[in-house]
Amino acid sequence: MGVDQVIAVDLGGTHLRAARITRDGTLTHHQATETRANEGVAAVIDRICALVEQVAHQAGVAADTPVGIVAPGPLDPVRGVIHMAPNLPGWHDVPLKDELVRRLKRPIVLGNDGNGAALGEALFGAARGARHIVHCVIGTGFGGGIITHGLLVEGVAGLGAEVGHVPVDPNGPRCHCGGIGCLEAFVSGWALARDGEALVQSGRSPSITQLAGGQPVTADIVTAAARQGDPAARAIFAQAGRALAVGLAGLINLFNPEVIVLGGGVAEAGELLTAPLQQWLPTYAMPHIADHVRIVTSSLGPNVGLYGAAARAFLVSDGVPPNAIRLPDR
Amino acid sequence: MGVDQVIAVDLGGTHLRAARITRDGTLTHHQATETRANEGVAAVIDRICALVEQVAHQAGVAADTPVGIVAPGPLDPVRGVIHMAPNLPGWHDVPLKDELVRRLKRPIVLGNDGNGAALGEALFGAARGARHIVHCVIGTGFGGGIITHGLLVEGVAGLGAEVGHVPVDPNGPRCHCGGIGCLEAFVSGWALARDGEALVQSGRSPSITQLAGGQPVTADIVTAAARQGDPAARAIFAQAGRALAVGLAGLINLFNPEVIVLGGGVAEAGELLTAPLQQWLPTYAMPHIADHVRIVTSSLGPNVGLYGAAARAFLVSDGVPPNAIRLPDR
Repeated sequence: MGVDQVIAVDLGGTHLRAARITRDGTLTHHQATETRANEGVAAVIDRICALVEQVAHQAGVAADTPVGIVAPGPLDPVRGVIHMAPNLPGWHDVPLKDELVRRLKRPIVLGNDGNGAALGEALFGAARGARHIVHCVIGTGFGGGIITHGLLVEGVAGLGAEVGHVPVDPNGPRCHCGGIGCLEAFVSGWALARDGEALVQSGRSPSITQLAGGQPVTADIVTAAARQGDPAARAIFAQAGRALAVGLAGLINLFNPEVIVLGGGVAEAGELLTAPLQQWLPTYAMPHIADHVRIVTSSLGPNVGLYGAAARAFLVSDGVPPNAIRLPDR
Repeated sequence: MGVDQVIAVDLGGTHLRAARITRDGTLTHHQATETRANEGVAAVIDRICALVEQVAHQAGVAADTPVGIVAPGPLDPVRGVIHMAPNLPGWHDVPLKDELVRRLKRPIVLGNDGNGAALGEALFGAARGARHIVHCVIGTGFGGGIITHGLLVEGVAGLGAEVGHVPVDPNGPRCHCGGIGCLEAFVSGWALARDGEALVQSGRSPSITQLAGGQPVTADIVTAAARQGDPAARAIFAQAGRALAVGLAGLINLFNPEVIVLGGGVAEAGELLTAPLQQWLPTYAMPHIADHVRIVTSSLGPNVGLYGAAARAFLVSDGVPPNAIRLPDR
């Protein structure tokens, strides 16, 4: 058993957050600031260091308390290098781990935010106790992570578990990743906004047009219109829920998971998404495999990134090899 | 390190085969017979026992040499129970492991044939040395297995890695599994035969019609017609190869594998399938992840089932837990 507390950092495209998290999952001394990625890599690293020092000081942690940090990928969790981050302009092959070790003189554990979130749910959240987990974070994009037999699926270069980039329709819309018909191109904040915008342009949804009031359509507006009963907005969710069923069916047939966790802002649409999901899942998932899975809602909310960062740091401090992150045996 | 040799058994819908396999992969004393599943469960178990005794006697193995056996699923590899086998009529919840332990007085290790095949390729075949492997067996159906971070993906009830049943088109043809648009419904012996038969019925492929000579169309006939340059037959492969690209792209984006092994009779169509696969893969796979993978041909041929049975038996004899089968650390 390694350390009993860590400092967790969630480096996002918009917000930078940090907190102290103990092994039993208590989160304290939360601090947040804007990432301001436009100011460049060095400025962001300065801000990370300042935030960590602040939390460390206020929480009174030891000088060798590790820092777990999650960041958008693709990144190399073993070497601790961010290859590229669409939401962090200018970040190309940044050796974040080495840089933070040099500056903070603490053990640093870097991981992908989506994969980390799965670890967070497994150790601290809605998937606690499970060892076969698919985790979906449906926000602006569609991230996620997968744990199978207690092992975090990251792949030979740490780039795996791109749950949102499983193609679910070979003739579907183009995805932000450059692919065609990815799950994210149907089920994500930007996909819902795109479809809502198309309704406004073609004059097919008076309620979305009214809610948007001349501003760009957002996923929240599409959700609000659907909640009001707008048929065109509901049809967007019907399509998204069916695509989610196709994607989750593939994951069920591949991983025979015991739990699928749905998190992120879009997942908060609730039944708008889960009703078509449940309607279509039996069409695409093998029934004898689907029987073993329960679909639940994330219990960590906006702190899932911090818990994910903490989870990886605890496991590495326990001696788990960074190229094969595993939950403790039961 | 456990035993230095095992008896391997491949229980198929048509053929029942057995052999002695040593730890270095030498296969000897091969025996085969027809399964004759129509004679009932007890008769087939009798035949398995007779075949094992025959190989054991001829190879002069010790009384406690284990038997590894692969069978079509779904099955429970931990308890050793075949839940159901579409190709073995009458097999429902057959406790094959316990029955064989009782009859043969040897350690028995049962696994799914597709998952076993991935282990076989990893320990003895085209994926030797790799730890992140996707294995596709494209025969009459589409089976396969997945190894990630050296761990065989089987899931919470041992039912996972149904590689052929990832949906690749929500509006695709119905699959034999009951689903819609599964990879197998596009890329398998029966799917190719179905599409060839449709060409004959509509009079759109004189060469397939001629090759079939009034008999039902087979995948081999479609392959032969495509090799002769028949445009309609080539179009079947173009569609199959594109579907394979969609399916493998999803697997690449999920597993970040280092190697994908293509095996089975349909894979022997070679370039007819791999040309459209290579053409379409960049459309659906994330390039930075696809860069890490090489696509290779199975090197174990029709013996892949026996090698898979042996691989699992060796690993279990080495002390690997049956609910988390892992390759040895390097």
